[in-house]
Amino acid sequence: MPGIVDDSSVEIAIVGGGIIGLVLAAGLIKNNIKVKVYEQAKGLREIGAGIAFTSNAIQCMNLMNPGIVSALRSGGSVPSSMDSNDPNDYVRWMDGYNQRRKDDPSYQKLMCKVNAGYRGFEGTRRDQFLEALVKIMPQESVELKKRLDNIEEKGPDGKLQLNFSDGTCAHADAVIGCDGIKSRVRELIFGEDNPASHSHYTHKVVYRALVPMEKAIETLGEFKAKNQHHHFGPNAHFVHYPVANQTMINVAVFMSDPNEWEEDIVTVVPGSRKDLEDALADWHPCLQALIRHFPEKLERWAVFDMFDYPLPYYNKGNICLAGDAAHASSPHHGAGAGCGIEDALCLCTLMGQVTETLRWDPSAATRKHAALCAAFEVFDLMRRTRSQWLVNSSRRACELYQQPEWGDEAKWTKAETCFEELRDRSYKIWRFDYEDMIRRSIEEYEKRRPAAKDFENGMV
Amino acid sequence: MPGIVDDSSVEIAIVGGGIIGLVLAAGLIKNNIKVKVYEQAKGLREIGAGIAFTSNAIQCMNLMNPGIVSALRSGGSVPSSMDSNDPNDYVRWMDGYNQRRKDDPSYQKLMCKVNAGYRGFEGTRRDQFLEALVKIMPQESVELKKRLDNIEEKGPDGKLQLNFSDGTCAHADAVIGCDGIKSRVRELIFGEDNPASHSHYTHKVVYRALVPMEKAIETLGEFKAKNQHHHFGPNAHFVHYPVANQTMINVAVFMSDPNEWEEDIVTVVPGSRKDLEDALADWHPCLQALIRHFPEKLERWAVFDMFDYPLPYYNKGNICLAGDAAHASSPHHGAGAGCGIEDALCLCTLMGQVTETLRWDPSAATRKHAALCAAFEVFDLMRRTRSQWLVNSSRRACELYQQPEWGDEAKWTKAETCFEELRDRSYKIWRFDYEDMIRRSIEEYEKRRPAAKDFENGMV
Repeated sequence: MPGIVDDSSVEIAIVGGGIIGLVLAAGLIKNNIKVKVYEQAKGLREIGAGIAFTSNAIQCMNLMNPGIVSALRSGGSVPSSMDSNDPNDYVRWMDGYNQRRKDDPSYQKLMCKVNAGYRGFEGTRRDQFLEALVKIMPQESVELKKRLDNIEEKGPDGKLQLNFSDGTCAHADAVIGCDGIKSRVRELIFGEDNPASHSHYTHKVVYRALVPMEKAIETLGEFKAKNQHHHFGPNAHFVHYPVANQTMINVAVFMSDPNEWEEDIVTVVPGSRKDLEDALADWHPCLQALIRHFPEKLERWAVFDMFDYPLPYYNKGNICLAGDAAHASSPHHGAGAGCGIEDALCLCTLMGQVTETLRWDPSAATRKHAALCAAFEVFDLMRRTRSQWLVNSSRRACELYQQPEWGDEAKWTKAETCFEELRDRSYKIWRFDYEDMIRRSIEEYEKRRPAAKDFENGMV
Repeated sequence: MPGIVDDSSVEIAIVGGGIIGLVLAAGLIKNNIKVKVYEQAKGLREIGAGIAFTSNAIQCMNLMNPGIVSALRSGGSVPSSMDSNDPNDYVRWMDGYNQRRKDDPSYQKLMCKVNAGYRGFEGTRRDQFLEALVKIMPQESVELKKRLDNIEEKGPDGKLQLNFSDGTCAHADAVIGCDGIKSRVRELIFGEDNPASHSHYTHKVVYRALVPMEKAIETLGEFKAKNQHHHFGPNAHFVHYPVANQTMINVAVFMSDPNEWEEDIVTVVPGSRKDLEDALADWHPCLQALIRHFPEKLERWAVFDMFDYPLPYYNKGNICLAGDAAHASSPHHGAGAGCGIEDALCLCTLMGQVTETLRWDPSAATRKHAALCAAFEVFDLMRRTRSQWLVNSSRRACELYQQPEWGDEAKWTKAETCFEELRDRSYKIWRFDYEDMIRRSIEEYEKRRPAAKDFENGMV
């Protein structure tokens, strides 16, 4: 058709080259959508050693781009629990404090075991996954050393200019902030003084360590060492699972901290094995023995999240937030990154719809802005409730793991009634109906998308 | 077959002639099982004005005995919420504290609306339901003025003797304690000094009143008055729904109380409208106006439940507990009685199975005891987790309704994230798969029931 300007393509800028930013980029690229990732660091790196994804989150990756799943697995991911005679993964909760037996000092009571399904929890090293992810993308799709300063709207068609602190700038039709818990895009939308712009202290600290498998087997026995277990007790809990092809286990020890976290920005301070030994001197001998295999010097990490001041919306015009930038959660369900993967699938679906809207209709430039704003509105509608539920639920799970009641025999029966709730919460995460999310995202976008006639009639 | 003594019939004693006791009796009678209800009072009566059942609980009644549902409806039950253009019931949660509008002083923000389905919440007067229930049973199946003193085992076949405080006694093959929150059967099983034998204060009090419909419409508007609504705010909440053929509304005002409840046994003390007016002086003008239609003298009811010390089991040999006797809950889900109805359906199913076991096999007397014990073990397995979850969930729901955050505008977004959880909890109650419970109860009983050959071999 003569006279039609082809401006139907959409250019997306992703701020932040962490796992969610790169997964989203890989998904958009697969959909033939132009995308560029801007990362402030001089290299791609991830904080924290391991990360696990539910089989549900992996299905979401697969729908976006099967290459993401290949990257995850080539990065060495392994199911975090696997019985030799059952292909499924289980999350197990053990009493880490009480109910010991003189005749069997290694005995711990298994309180609850929940089936996460086939390869239900696939764990990997964060850095290996990132490295493999980058390889499936064109080299020019990631720019390093780009620390975002601010975003300006340029011109009547809603085009955005990203200004970086090195004095350079970039342009895009829309910006998606995947810049994590300390998101700059979030600050730009909500203002630096808004408490919702920042994460807050959860009053939990965590110590992490890697323990060689043979030491782990010595203290925990082979079965516990080779499968994911949670050990709970009053005001603390342990989580451990095998990593690195079963050559070591990753252990995290979470402890309650009634105090405020003094450091404003620094969330890691030096700690020691002795801190842990003193705090957990009453715990099960197995776990005390496990701690003795930790290095003497440890780091004490503060757990921050967005529970206290959740965001009232995830979108503002043609800018939106995804992953931890939108809903940073504590890690007690092991599902924070998985929730970001669900976000990415939702955004890929919607950006695909936006491209469709633009492909067949004229007067693309103005309509593009309206279509992107509509898509981000749908993203907020589809994702905010569930992801904020996760933030709350993760806090709640930790409360249940760390019930002071575990320390009082008269209260054990009460404390044990928590597992029905923990099972429900786990299933809500693991059995998320992402196909329904896709279907509803498309439906809701259809209701809101700019129609060609509106433009012809000058209504938009 | 000559030589076989027909002792295949089972005689059940139910302690307590409240709703659960009578519903269970009506179910057993329909199954041709011999049953007698022993009630301590001189007449059948129920504390509290109204009671509501989910459509799920009503289906359970129907499976036990369709006469129970007829009794409920002839007793004048009405759906507690019904839009003129939608046959379904809804539970609605409104902000009862903030977000007022100068241009419309009656405005309250509707925060969440959950569809309970067709006749999802059917409310009735307790006394009318009881009265109608008794009519569907043979007169001799209920004995009044029988206060249980203790239970003795008589003879090797596990026959039980119930001793009453009037010096009389009765005999049965099994005893089911449906004797409510202050259960004597529970005390007999667990001992009077065990904290699990008693309910404990939830630190919530409730004031209840009936308000004529025209007054309710004047203060709330027609729609709110004629449909169930919850109004939440810091440390208190309101629930109201129409009763008595829409001629009045039943209002309950729940308030947090940080103090201990001094009276040990008395759970109702005098209160006044002024207490409420003073405590809720900051609340929405609509609700303040509603309180002004309450009588000047009110009762202050303490809410007790079994949250602090849940029971470790619901069965002991051929004695078991059902309904509030097993799992007294606070009323914040409106589901305590419904959970007892689920118990009754489970017991009816199991007593039917016991009768089947005995019908075809010899040596009934000893086997009867073993069969009843097995059935009650299955009852405990099927019902304890869910009913104790309900006790916890009801407490949690109240915490969410009464979040102090509702009183702090900077915290509204946080407080509002609770509705996803409230919806999930409601669905778990409303969508209970009672057919699965029946199927699994039969399966589990089959695993445990005494087989004829065991008796022949002298194994039981």
